[in-house]
Amino acid sequence: DSGNFVPIDRLFNEELSVVDLAHLLESTPSKVRMFLWSFIDEIHQGDVLSYLNDEIRQALLGKMSAEEIVETTQDIESDDLADMLQQMPPEVSNRVLQLMPSDDRSEVEGLLVYPEDTAGGLMNTDVVAIRADVTVETVLRYLRKLELPDSLDMLWVTDRDSHYKGSLALPRLLTTAADVTIADIMSTTIKAIDAYADEEHVAQIFERQDLISAPVVNGEGILIGRITIDDVVDVIIENADHSILGMAGLDEEDDVFAPAIKSSQDRAVWLGINMATAFIAAAVMSRFEASIAEIVALAVLSPVVASMGGIAGSQTLTLIIRGMATGHVTRSNLSWMILRELGVGLINGSLWAIVIGSITVIWYHSFSLALVIAAAILVNICLAVLSGTLLPFILKSAKIDPALSGSVILTTLTDVFGFLTFLGLATAFLL
Amino acid sequence: DSGNFVPIDRLFNEELSVVDLAHLLESTPSKVRMFLWSFIDEIHQGDVLSYLNDEIRQALLGKMSAEEIVETTQDIESDDLADMLQQMPPEVSNRVLQLMPSDDRSEVEGLLVYPEDTAGGLMNTDVVAIRADVTVETVLRYLRKLELPDSLDMLWVTDRDSHYKGSLALPRLLTTAADVTIADIMSTTIKAIDAYADEEHVAQIFERQDLISAPVVNGEGILIGRITIDDVVDVIIENADHSILGMAGLDEEDDVFAPAIKSSQDRAVWLGINMATAFIAAAVMSRFEASIAEIVALAVLSPVVASMGGIAGSQTLTLIIRGMATGHVTRSNLSWMILRELGVGLINGSLWAIVIGSITVIWYHSFSLALVIAAAILVNICLAVLSGTLLPFILKSAKIDPALSGSVILTTLTDVFGFLTFLGLATAFLL
Repeated sequence: DSGNFVPIDRLFNEELSVVDLAHLLESTPSKVRMFLWSFIDEIHQGDVLSYLNDEIRQALLGKMSAEEIVETTQDIESDDLADMLQQMPPEVSNRVLQLMPSDDRSEVEGLLVYPEDTAGGLMNTDVVAIRADVTVETVLRYLRKLELPDSLDMLWVTDRDSHYKGSLALPRLLTTAADVTIADIMSTTIKAIDAYADEEHVAQIFERQDLISAPVVNGEGILIGRITIDDVVDVIIENADHSILGMAGLDEEDDVFAPAIKSSQDRAVWLGINMATAFIAAAVMSRFEASIAEIVALAVLSPVVASMGGIAGSQTLTLIIRGMATGHVTRSNLSWMILRELGVGLINGSLWAIVIGSITVIWYHSFSLALVIAAAILVNICLAVLSGTLLPFILKSAKIDPALSGSVILTTLTDVFGFLTFLGLATAFLL
Repeated sequence: DSGNFVPIDRLFNEELSVVDLAHLLESTPSKVRMFLWSFIDEIHQGDVLSYLNDEIRQALLGKMSAEEIVETTQDIESDDLADMLQQMPPEVSNRVLQLMPSDDRSEVEGLLVYPEDTAGGLMNTDVVAIRADVTVETVLRYLRKLELPDSLDMLWVTDRDSHYKGSLALPRLLTTAADVTIADIMSTTIKAIDAYADEEHVAQIFERQDLISAPVVNGEGILIGRITIDDVVDVIIENADHSILGMAGLDEEDDVFAPAIKSSQDRAVWLGINMATAFIAAAVMSRFEASIAEIVALAVLSPVVASMGGIAGSQTLTLIIRGMATGHVTRSNLSWMILRELGVGLINGSLWAIVIGSITVIWYHSFSLALVIAAAILVNICLAVLSGTLLPFILKSAKIDPALSGSVILTTLTDVFGFLTFLGLATAFLL
């Protein structure tokens, strides 16, 4: 009897599910994490690994020998294991593959062919295929002999040569008379996904059609696996993380609880890039030092002009990048978007030109300064929304990820436009 | 024969699925949208509606009479219909309810009790409940009499009084001998979700446990419905949209293809708030006009100091807000986070203080100006990461959504800190 304390290893393995354990490990600084990890029963470690985020999982695997990895991961689903192996140094993953039972090895090796971010990388090979010319009774008898995963929702119908032909939902099977032929109740609405299809495309198919699982075929249309919604949800969340964290130059695979030195390194590059852009804007401003020395109000008001452009531009940029990710905004409606955004720029530009002009009159008692800042605001907001619309398309054509670099490029543009228009107009008309 | 052209109405109803139609409508400016909508077969309109985003759907419903709404929505799932009714003016939704067949009405009215963003608002009432003391054979016979939805993956086990007791996956039912009792094969790992649980909490449960459906119970533990993964995926995507679009002051429910006037209104408030914060920063800067008039370099370098703080702070802010959303960052590890971020601030602050100080020496040939800017960079980056850590917690305690207002408050803080430290130190030491 340990008095009021629950022994930590009992607490760990009995009171918390593997999902809770994974979440707990992810919410813990790295030193404490290694300590907690050592308390997890070896039989549960593999399961916990499959729920951890990439960086943390690879760090834990990195401390194991190939033998321990094989031991720990023996109950992990083959698609998860393939992902882990793809992220290990080749000498370790090769050694792990050699040590695996040959059945498991050939299954995993089949999956390693496909990059992690394709349908093939997402799929599992636990498909149950049936033929269209058999009866419900035959299928039920066949299923009874198998070990079915709890997540099985569909059977796939194939021809003699394993070409995908259609699907049959389990509830349909349960409510149909025993002598009905599968061909009469199968559905053909679910199309097979090519193994090399991009994972974002897979996510869009699942979202739009509310699928729970989908068949994956190779180049010849032969059924080779199935993708389940849980893996698609992971893709959706990773994409969202990428969009959200990418805007701040962060990587969605990084450990949130990395120590200060590691975190500083992760973030330093982004700060450096932004410093460079800030100095570009500063260099533009410095061309007008003589004007500023004469009218100090220009120094005070310049950041206001730059910031209004930055906000207007980033609203458009965010809308366009998100619209591209969901597939709503494409080249086919780009010209409509440009016109609409130009309309927004003119309307909001005029509105805030009047407001900021009025504030400037009240503050600095100068009508000509107010006119200059109003003109600069209008021009800068229009340029900003145009840049925000075009930039994602230009970056995408250049194979640059707009979610990562869009905002920093846009801010540089709006700062430079802002300083140039405001200080340029001021130099021309006020001095 | 219409020659080379496919008649538009045939194309619409035969070649495109309802999902494709909904996506097409969402990707179209509002005028064209009404035109396309009129070509969709009335029997498909209801289905298309259920796949559209809120604003567009309500706009289309707003143009129909209560009678037409009842007609169009008769095949829509009850949870989707309840959501639509909750967003209509009360006089319309009451009229629609009155016109509905009484069975459907009482089902929908049961759902209207729960707010849209709770488990009750997400759930459907199409549950299949069985008792634990019957055999597999009895269940199979019972199911054969029902009309099961294709998406059914689990049966729920309840007691005599409908209290939730456990779950039974369909594959398990198919592979178990006919005379086995349900109690022996049911699972108790899936816990019931309270009808008033927040939808984000529901999404976390689904994510962590890789669920396809989950039972919903009322306050007495009585099974009243089930939530399916497709509705949870919508919640996950809406939350991601909210985080991504919210940072730019945009609403995830707005129509991406709204006309310019509507879009301008949607975005004007955010521009106004940001203008106010830009003027706060400008007011701080204007207190130092005398210093700037003497050393114009201060005007050129001030935005650099403010922007480095802004970037460092927003990196921390993004990380913390995202960590709070995923449940990794909580009050319990806040103090660790503060120390870690302070470490990051000191490391990156020192690094960029040295770099920016060196650039300043080269540019302006002034060692004292370089020292002042270096000190300001260090102080501002440290204050920025601290603000970025604490702000989301403070906002959350005040019931303000950090995803919406976090970045604008943070930027105001870092601008003000930046101008104050840099111009303050310069005034104290350089003049």
